[in-house]
Amino acid sequence: MPLLTADAKGVYAISVTPFHPDGRIDFDSLDRVTDFYLEKGATGLTILGIMGEAQKLTQHEARDVARRVIARASVPVVVGVSAPGLAAITELSASVMDMGAAGVMVAPPGNLRTDAQIRSYYAQAVAAAGEGVPVVLQDYPLITGVQMDTAVIGQIVTDHPQVVMLKHEDWPGLAKITAIRKSESAGQRRISILCGNGGLFLPEEMGRGANGAMTGFAFPEMLAQVVALCGQGQAERAQDIFDAHLPLVRYEQQPVAGLAVRKYVLARRGAIASEAQRAPGANLPAEARAEVDRMMARLDRRLAELA
Amino acid sequence: MPLLTADAKGVYAISVTPFHPDGRIDFDSLDRVTDFYLEKGATGLTILGIMGEAQKLTQHEARDVARRVIARASVPVVVGVSAPGLAAITELSASVMDMGAAGVMVAPPGNLRTDAQIRSYYAQAVAAAGEGVPVVLQDYPLITGVQMDTAVIGQIVTDHPQVVMLKHEDWPGLAKITAIRKSESAGQRRISILCGNGGLFLPEEMGRGANGAMTGFAFPEMLAQVVALCGQGQAERAQDIFDAHLPLVRYEQQPVAGLAVRKYVLARRGAIASEAQRAPGANLPAEARAEVDRMMARLDRRLAELA
Amino acid sequence: MPLLTADAKGVYAISVTPFHPDGRIDFDSLDRVTDFYLEKGATGLTILGIMGEAQKLTQHEARDVARRVIARASVPVVVGVSAPGLAAITELSASVMDMGAAGVMVAPPGNLRTDAQIRSYYAQAVAAAGEGVPVVLQDYPLITGVQMDTAVIGQIVTDHPQVVMLKHEDWPGLAKITAIRKSESAGQRRISILCGNGGLFLPEEMGRGANGAMTGFAFPEMLAQVVALCGQGQAERAQDIFDAHLPLVRYEQQPVAGLAVRKYVLARRGAIASEAQRAPGANLPAEARAEVDRMMARLDRRLAELA
Amino acid sequence: MPLLTADAKGVYAISVTPFHPDGRIDFDSLDRVTDFYLEKGATGLTILGIMGEAQKLTQHEARDVARRVIARASVPVVVGVSAPGLAAITELSASVMDMGAAGVMVAPPGNLRTDAQIRSYYAQAVAAAGEGVPVVLQDYPLITGVQMDTAVIGQIVTDHPQVVMLKHEDWPGLAKITAIRKSESAGQRRISILCGNGGLFLPEEMGRGANGAMTGFAFPEMLAQVVALCGQGQAERAQDIFDAHLPLVRYEQQPVAGLAVRKYVLARRGAIASEAQRAPGANLPAEARAEVDRMMARLDRRLAELA
Repeated sequence: MPLLTADAKGVYAISVTPFHPDGRIDFDSLDRVTDFYLEKGATGLTILGIMGEAQKLTQHEARDVARRVIARASVPVVVGVSAPGLAAITELSASVMDMGAAGVMVAPPGNLRTDAQIRSYYAQAVAAAGEGVPVVLQDYPLITGVQMDTAVIGQIVTDHPQVVMLKHEDWPGLAKITAIRKSESAGQRRISILCGNGGLFLPEEMGRGANGAMTGFAFPEMLAQVVALCGQGQAERAQDIFDAHLPLVRYEQQPVAGLAVRKYVLARRGAIASEAQRAPGANLPAEARAEVDRMMARLDRRLAELA
Repeated sequence: MPLLTADAKGVYAISVTPFHPDGRIDFDSLDRVTDFYLEKGATGLTILGIMGEAQKLTQHEARDVARRVIARASVPVVVGVSAPGLAAITELSASVMDMGAAGVMVAPPGNLRTDAQIRSYYAQAVAAAGEGVPVVLQDYPLITGVQMDTAVIGQIVTDHPQVVMLKHEDWPGLAKITAIRKSESAGQRRISILCGNGGLFLPEEMGRGANGAMTGFAFPEMLAQVVALCGQGQAERAQDIFDAHLPLVRYEQQPVAGLAVRKYVLARRGAIASEAQRAPGANLPAEARAEVDRMMARLDRRLAELA
Repeated sequence: MPLLTADAKGVYAISVTPFHPDGRIDFDSLDRVTDFYLEKGATGLTILGIMGEAQKLTQHEARDVARRVIARASVPVVVGVSAPGLAAITELSASVMDMGAAGVMVAPPGNLRTDAQIRSYYAQAVAAAGEGVPVVLQDYPLITGVQMDTAVIGQIVTDHPQVVMLKHEDWPGLAKITAIRKSESAGQRRISILCGNGGLFLPEEMGRGANGAMTGFAFPEMLAQVVALCGQGQAERAQDIFDAHLPLVRYEQQPVAGLAVRKYVLARRGAIASEAQRAPGANLPAEARAEVDRMMARLDRRLAELA
Repeated sequence: MPLLTADAKGVYAISVTPFHPDGRIDFDSLDRVTDFYLEKGATGLTILGIMGEAQKLTQHEARDVARRVIARASVPVVVGVSAPGLAAITELSASVMDMGAAGVMVAPPGNLRTDAQIRSYYAQAVAAAGEGVPVVLQDYPLITGVQMDTAVIGQIVTDHPQVVMLKHEDWPGLAKITAIRKSESAGQRRISILCGNGGLFLPEEMGRGANGAMTGFAFPEMLAQVVALCGQGQAERAQDIFDAHLPLVRYEQQPVAGLAVRKYVLARRGAIASEAQRAPGANLPAEARAEVDRMMARLDRRLAELA
């Protein structure tokens, strides 16, 4: 599989990790959901991220998941390798690159505060990922608690040619995309910017210069259509499709609870056999299930109107 | 003006504080926006909250704002009195109740962690608010950093008959509404639950048993219609109206940046003369302005379709 | 009273605010403790800081305390003016400078994270303090949660000639003193560095180039002696005096609980009439009282040995 | 090796992990420092904790370290198994108990806030540790950010007979020891309380009812003597020994920087070959080295005076 480059665009689906109700990994469903993302228009996959319940897996399991997905997917696979220590990053990165991963993604540890600390950490983490391994910088302050200034992102990009992509998940973050693109116009090396946050601001993000989405919304075809239509200059049509899905996007974007929503929808759509999360992590309560069912029915009607 | 009770419902608009471009309070616009909220269906007002830039006012100014709004509004006015110290709460609470406020709202200081600390703080804060003064419990962990368990909220309600309302702004928080209503079915004293978060989950919140909204979305008529229609059992119609506004709700709900959006829209709608925020606080950048303009145009079209 | 300059040195005692057991401010004790600090060797005073229970005072009370201390003290008085909003800083700063304060102290609000945010905040806060008003930069990450890089401190010093002093309270912070002094050797404007943290690292801080202490340890004579002896090159004698007090320094340095210790000791030493804190804030429990009594007895014996 | 019980007492030394200057684990030094702790009076050892740089090791390395120490030590060895996910806890716990560990230690993940969340987490973590495996509850809010109320600790102890020990590292925490012992007098199951924080409050902790220390101060013989003398009712003598070491205790207790101090002292004392930390983690700067050298010389003189 070719390595990730700064030209990457489209939709990198953040994959869930399917489990059996008893907590074992469901590898058949892992194949099925991998195929599902590709059928719905994903141009890449991202695994072992926060929404992939990576922290609930043993190291052995994490590698099994990576191996299975990389072997099956016909698109570039980015693997999350964030870990409390550099040695663990080195170990996992070497292992998944060897399996054929396209690159690795690194989020900053939660204790970083000052610009110098962040810059210094990425110098170490990029080295730990291994020479020549493409690195995705994950900027997700709501979860990590780390705020990266646009200037710091620019320094990291300049310091490390291996950093080829920003997973943009700052909130609010539209101004950040604009600022980075301005810096690039002024000479800073251009990187790919793929946006997260469940796609909640995707039309605006595309308008600001993003190259696509990297997120796990359970209707990846919406993400793919919006990115494609924006690329074709059909912003109004893109927005119509987006708005139709927005009630669900918003609902799935709830912290913690959101993963239960996502897995419930994926199971209803046949992409995975069970909505089970590994403990800790609860299934969707009955009230929420009814709310999602109602939104899915409304989505069908609205899409029919728009067809 | 009668005091706030546990029967309160409808829409309590969180009022902005209008400023002149030079930073002075714009009292004419304060009158105008007060009238605007009422014309659009607000059944109450909430002032001196976070989105009212209360922390940027001197004590003297804060009282001037409270006096002006309470004198002009024909609906109950809740006043935010959160402060680092109890003496300041006592002073401001006595002052605004004297002016005719319907009650006061208290958010927890950010250093509270354990259930016992939270319960103990509210014992002191309720006493500081003054005997018989209705208190609104503000549960807003995204901003305060304080997580209040449903059981703790129940204890505070049971301990203090003065606590008549929950400003519900947990995120995700739907399960919390359900849990509180269940506790009430089992005998806990019933309180009013008004929901914040810009209205982002209002239809679901009403379905879970909320009594309305307390938030500052710049189209308060949407909030009023959704609450009213839900009350009349017209959930689908409510959802249609809601969905039409959702792109804007979402956009205005961005932390920090959201207030600039809100004031820009209110200024465009003629409710205030200037979108100016007192420093620190910047006006909306040009790109964002264009995004909001586009969404407002689309909203008009969508509402016409739904009419 | 002359204004604070970058030449300030010695011991600026962080004054407690004495209360009667019923919660009223005890102004007689305020006079007495002011005299006490001066008799014990303080070369300046700092009031309305965190350990002065400033947040528990109303604005009116805060000014009464400031007026009383400034009028009585024959040394420069620094007044803490940190507040959530700039308008409040302006108001309090103007008021206390008018009374004869030597300067004001500003801690960063807890939401600041990036270097740019911190630098931008101090630009606003210094302006808010008023033209020409000497400003003390308070660097206290354990309480504020804000981490200021040495480079950022340097930028603030360079940007704002009004900033004449660093209240150094980072922990660990010895390397920061060394780094700032190095930057000054390389041309950065020299400021006064007075150290906090209850004096817990005072001998090492003096060795690294600090100009003294700004803290509230209940034996200010120890701080004064250590600073003086270090200035005379008598480091070993300074360390002997310091070590004798260290068990108490350490005990008083416990967060939250420390203020009860400090007030208990000050009351035992006759500097204030009552150890009462204004609510919330509890007196020392019996076990802790016994521990402090024992340490004070041991201190007497050890000082006798050293005499 | 027998399993850990609630009768455990004395000094459990938190072991460093020695590295060669090039970053490889130094197993010879690991043997040497294991022997050193025992010679200096440790009655147990704790490995793979925060100060053991556990997060910098790969899983494979972590097990090698555990195997080596457990095989060599003639005392009970507690192994830190805190991990972001339960599966990793299960895996490591089973592995080290199989090697002959006496029990495992679990700190709470940093996102826990409410009492119910903490209680629920420990129900899962204790199950994950494995049936019958003794569990040490690590209460270290300064690092974890999680505040455990005494009542919550009591509930966890009552819920899970496997929890036999509290690693007490709250700060301030003396009142917590007193409160737990009172609850035990009222019928709560008695546990062992060993105290951390580098021993900074050891004499007082023993006076409040602690059973000893679990910490890594580089002079473990001081910890052993203080615990022993307190047990023999020789509190004054214990305090003399403690006070002599206090300047170093305090200096080593600096966050982050403290580990460099500890390793420097251990290397100077011959317990490990190199003070190297694995990256990230810097050696002690020259100024700090001189400060430590001076304190060690003063300690020698003071101990001679006391002999």
